[in-house]
Amino acid sequence: MTGAPRKSFGSDNHAGAHPAVMRAIVEANVGDAVAYGADQWTEHTVSEIKRLAGAEGEVYLVLNGSGANVLGLGLLLGRHESVICADSAHINTDECGAAERILGTKLLTVPSVDGKITPEQIATRLAGRGDEHFAQPGAVAITQSTEFGTCYSLAELRAIRDFCAANRLRVYLDGARLANAAAYLGCTLADLAECADVLSFGGTKNGAMGVEAVVVMRPGDAVNAPYLRKQHMQLSSKMRFLAAQFGALLTDDLWLRNAAHANAMATRLADGLAGLPGAEVVYPVQSDAVFARLEPRHIEELQQKWIFHVWDESSSIVRWMTAFDTQEADVDAFLADVVAVTGAARV
Amino acid sequence: MTGAPRKSFGSDNHAGAHPAVMRAIVEANVGDAVAYGADQWTEHTVSEIKRLAGAEGEVYLVLNGSGANVLGLGLLLGRHESVICADSAHINTDECGAAERILGTKLLTVPSVDGKITPEQIATRLAGRGDEHFAQPGAVAITQSTEFGTCYSLAELRAIRDFCAANRLRVYLDGARLANAAAYLGCTLADLAECADVLSFGGTKNGAMGVEAVVVMRPGDAVNAPYLRKQHMQLSSKMRFLAAQFGALLTDDLWLRNAAHANAMATRLADGLAGLPGAEVVYPVQSDAVFARLEPRHIEELQQKWIFHVWDESSSIVRWMTAFDTQEADVDAFLADVVAVTGAARV
Amino acid sequence: MTGAPRKSFGSDNHAGAHPAVMRAIVEANVGDAVAYGADQWTEHTVSEIKRLAGAEGEVYLVLNGSGANVLGLGLLLGRHESVICADSAHINTDECGAAERILGTKLLTVPSVDGKITPEQIATRLAGRGDEHFAQPGAVAITQSTEFGTCYSLAELRAIRDFCAANRLRVYLDGARLANAAAYLGCTLADLAECADVLSFGGTKNGAMGVEAVVVMRPGDAVNAPYLRKQHMQLSSKMRFLAAQFGALLTDDLWLRNAAHANAMATRLADGLAGLPGAEVVYPVQSDAVFARLEPRHIEELQQKWIFHVWDESSSIVRWMTAFDTQEADVDAFLADVVAVTGAARV
Amino acid sequence: MTGAPRKSFGSDNHAGAHPAVMRAIVEANVGDAVAYGADQWTEHTVSEIKRLAGAEGEVYLVLNGSGANVLGLGLLLGRHESVICADSAHINTDECGAAERILGTKLLTVPSVDGKITPEQIATRLAGRGDEHFAQPGAVAITQSTEFGTCYSLAELRAIRDFCAANRLRVYLDGARLANAAAYLGCTLADLAECADVLSFGGTKNGAMGVEAVVVMRPGDAVNAPYLRKQHMQLSSKMRFLAAQFGALLTDDLWLRNAAHANAMATRLADGLAGLPGAEVVYPVQSDAVFARLEPRHIEELQQKWIFHVWDESSSIVRWMTAFDTQEADVDAFLADVVAVTGAARV
Repeated sequence: MTGAPRKSFGSDNHAGAHPAVMRAIVEANVGDAVAYGADQWTEHTVSEIKRLAGAEGEVYLVLNGSGANVLGLGLLLGRHESVICADSAHINTDECGAAERILGTKLLTVPSVDGKITPEQIATRLAGRGDEHFAQPGAVAITQSTEFGTCYSLAELRAIRDFCAANRLRVYLDGARLANAAAYLGCTLADLAECADVLSFGGTKNGAMGVEAVVVMRPGDAVNAPYLRKQHMQLSSKMRFLAAQFGALLTDDLWLRNAAHANAMATRLADGLAGLPGAEVVYPVQSDAVFARLEPRHIEELQQKWIFHVWDESSSIVRWMTAFDTQEADVDAFLADVVAVTGAARV
Repeated sequence: MTGAPRKSFGSDNHAGAHPAVMRAIVEANVGDAVAYGADQWTEHTVSEIKRLAGAEGEVYLVLNGSGANVLGLGLLLGRHESVICADSAHINTDECGAAERILGTKLLTVPSVDGKITPEQIATRLAGRGDEHFAQPGAVAITQSTEFGTCYSLAELRAIRDFCAANRLRVYLDGARLANAAAYLGCTLADLAECADVLSFGGTKNGAMGVEAVVVMRPGDAVNAPYLRKQHMQLSSKMRFLAAQFGALLTDDLWLRNAAHANAMATRLADGLAGLPGAEVVYPVQSDAVFARLEPRHIEELQQKWIFHVWDESSSIVRWMTAFDTQEADVDAFLADVVAVTGAARV
Repeated sequence: MTGAPRKSFGSDNHAGAHPAVMRAIVEANVGDAVAYGADQWTEHTVSEIKRLAGAEGEVYLVLNGSGANVLGLGLLLGRHESVICADSAHINTDECGAAERILGTKLLTVPSVDGKITPEQIATRLAGRGDEHFAQPGAVAITQSTEFGTCYSLAELRAIRDFCAANRLRVYLDGARLANAAAYLGCTLADLAECADVLSFGGTKNGAMGVEAVVVMRPGDAVNAPYLRKQHMQLSSKMRFLAAQFGALLTDDLWLRNAAHANAMATRLADGLAGLPGAEVVYPVQSDAVFARLEPRHIEELQQKWIFHVWDESSSIVRWMTAFDTQEADVDAFLADVVAVTGAARV
Repeated sequence: MTGAPRKSFGSDNHAGAHPAVMRAIVEANVGDAVAYGADQWTEHTVSEIKRLAGAEGEVYLVLNGSGANVLGLGLLLGRHESVICADSAHINTDECGAAERILGTKLLTVPSVDGKITPEQIATRLAGRGDEHFAQPGAVAITQSTEFGTCYSLAELRAIRDFCAANRLRVYLDGARLANAAAYLGCTLADLAECADVLSFGGTKNGAMGVEAVVVMRPGDAVNAPYLRKQHMQLSSKMRFLAAQFGALLTDDLWLRNAAHANAMATRLADGLAGLPGAEVVYPVQSDAVFARLEPRHIEELQQKWIFHVWDESSSIVRWMTAFDTQEADVDAFLADVVAVTGAARV
């Protein structure tokens, strides 16, 4: 859709890099810097993320979201351990089986309606504990905000954390869109981070060109991380350029402002759909995604003008995503077309 | 060493990005682009590399050199197959065992003085063929230019290719510095590529910010590559920025000019050392690296002012690398200090 | 429960070895034999299984059921491919995640009531075909007889085979209890084998001490098998003793007679439960297993005298298994106790 | 070579099972026993091996030597860790790359003349410690007795143990022929075991049909072992038959007597070669193997009558192995033929 005049609602990674991020990259391109992270940009960014997350462990910049998830899980799992997660988790559905392939781990899924899981559901997967015939649950993986655009409340996160702590389970939090959750909940990064043992903090969907942070909350879990990052092919040589991107996002809370803006655009879109019988919003809009049910023929017509994904063909549900650079006018133009396409049905 | 006034001779990845690469990144940051490579930049770059390499298969952009090597080897190996390579190969010494860990493969090393291996050496590793107790040799991995800054001649490469073809061995070429070899040999990319089944073509050390290409010469070897790239966590979402970098390098042969310049600077350095008894150049200088033997106390003194690696402490050998942005004045200033430090010994 | 006077209904592997198997082991213990399968016993057994299964490929003796399943699947899967199977499949629930850990594969489960799956269910898992973000379905794994003691009819098996052939899916059949299915269906081993690309043929639960066969139907799939068997640590040095066991089972159709007997004992047990309201048989009894629902307190009481597994505590379902050496008197004594324990409720 | 009238000198696993082992198997075939090791035979054998080895941890019976090695190493290694071992180690040369494939580990080999390695050699492999680009050495693997029939003295073993303890390295001992070493050194199993963190104790080559023990010296290293044994497909269902075999070997020190006898036969063979210029013994004979250099034409002639392996064709070295059941007459007959074949050269 390059060159297309219309904003994509296909994904928050259809957007480019935020201008401040781009400036930071350009400014980091000055002279030499020792490779693999022994540079001032990395030192600054890592220490800043540690501070924001309240992490006593360490922070590792990696190249993409799957890289962050697999590394993060790998830090928490023994070779014989499995991961409890939602069936809709990105690690289960969208990473081509990387967790199984790279970690050799088994994913024990629980059904999730809205992307969230509960301690009660986690408990159902603990039956085989202590039986050598079962892959032993070692960690729980949750996503915040979820793949369905919903957010765990802090109370829900803490309930999971407490349940896991009481049940010898580690918590990994896939935070590819963690900023959106912080913006939605009005909480700090530390409020979220303290509910996990290891988490990812996503830069790419927030406005970076391509960088994610793996945040290890306690030093003991970080001991092997540098080696595993390298083995997982996630160690960047010219690291300063990853660090500079994240540095820009951290400056003046740009990460939070970008997320809040994207969230607001999704809310504007959902609000505009209210009362429109032809487009039913199917999940609470709590981040930068709107999931809606439309007639198949309306979807088809809309896709001729706009880019977005059909999430589930069988139930005729689409996903519309906003980004840091989505404008009110984009949303309004899109809404107008949704109304036009489904309009005959408007009450 | 950030902010240091002196050019690093530590590695070609201490350099930043070439201005043209940076411009291309900035220019690609316009509006939306579909993620994961379905964009015009990727289409252009991939087709251009295919053309230059004479590849009938496919080209995959990945995030770093280890990612390229592991993916490339993975395309050529069955689960029970091993890789014959030089003991000094980057995959054996510098990737934290990623090939073993991610592919589960065994590396069958042969001793190499200068980074190169021969058909005769490869033949010594074929003894266990057909015996189920031995990890079966499936591929040969060579590096061009090598980790010691030397280059295989085209005749040497073709001898390896022909030997492998005659012995049911696939050829993987680690081309993290392939451009330097093309510049040194005065040959085309296709001349080099035709000696391999799969190769990497490095952008990062050539002046990119961070991008490598995996070139699959024949379509049959590419069938599973998209899935393996994703599983290996090497699929970038905002792919246009990887593609734009490489696109800049390919424009007006910038990749070749960058490499030729770096090579020339290494040659200038080596030439300046000629006749200097205190700094013996130990390998032919055929790319952007100079390996020299100095007295330990001279190394120490020199490292107080300049950044470079001691390659082998026991034999007191250092590695000095140039880059696309090394200036004649940098080399001359460095040479002057080498002379000064080792000078008492000059004849 | 060693030394217990009562027959175990816990599992068909609580039984020892059939006397004929034991005799064959003793008789094979004569002088030397070249290790790793280059012996006359292995030659005989392998060729006999090939003949019985109608296999044009090859047969590999391995050490246990998990070893057979992981090797068999490994022969059919590319590194990026996943396996479609029932959620109740042994590979999913009882092998400690070996398929994920050893093969790096993902299991795409479909819900199954009675252990069987259908082409329609398989079809639901093919949605992500061709999308690099999804682990590509490469094989379907079915179990015959199933973990619930049911059997696919030949028509059902052929429907799966045809569906898979038409959809680029390979078929692996876990035949740990394949003999029981052949006995139940009154068909040949070849009738069953021709529905799979690779299958296991179980000896252990049939009366062997410990041996399974991996049957590769076509030569092309067997090329790498010897190496993978060794890598999977499934190659026995004193192979003659594995071969002799299976040889005994193959002599005069002992494998079929053992299975038919065990099946008959299960049927006798199920028949005896008919009309007993306190013990409801919940799956068709088509092999050597009876699954029944009892009151929790009745289960507890019965377990004080007899060994068997509670299959599902939440639904109060138990599994009772017979074996080649279960006697009518064992079944009758057990039945009497079931009646006694649940008796108050008998109509 | 089945049915051949002559004793094989090909391998100690060409022998069958010791009569006492066979008796124990037959005797264990009585009634039912709970599967997977919850039986009296396993309880007895495991507790007896623990006692003999002085192990405070746990003992796990597995199915073969590769299974023991990979499980044992796996208990000691983090995912990012590598293994230092002799280039001639069985795990490096004879297990089809299982350690790399199953554990994803890298083997850092050191050259060994006689199968033994020293702390000094181990030290040469520690250079990359703490550098994320290197696979971190986590364990040292030694073999006792070695693949060349030599034995570490207790002093040598303790030197390795102490060096490793002082250098954060764990020790794995491949004891496929540990009994032969105990017999040669005149020491206890505990004397040997205390030099390792985890070791294998081989039954198969000692006279069992097929069973090895993985001995974990300290409880902390055993925590995950049951799960990993299952994942590695090394858990036998009818475990009593593995346990009974080892039980027989442990009764009245049969394991030690078998080993001492085999050793004596090797010594008799070596003694008989003394002064025979046509057959030079090339390694000290300290267990059940004799390595000798013969003229290629003599090897060929001898192989027409006797079974044995050419170990190294290029140097014309053969391996002759004895076993628990090798008779003096076998050795003498073999010697007579060696003399006859090489005789022209006798002084």
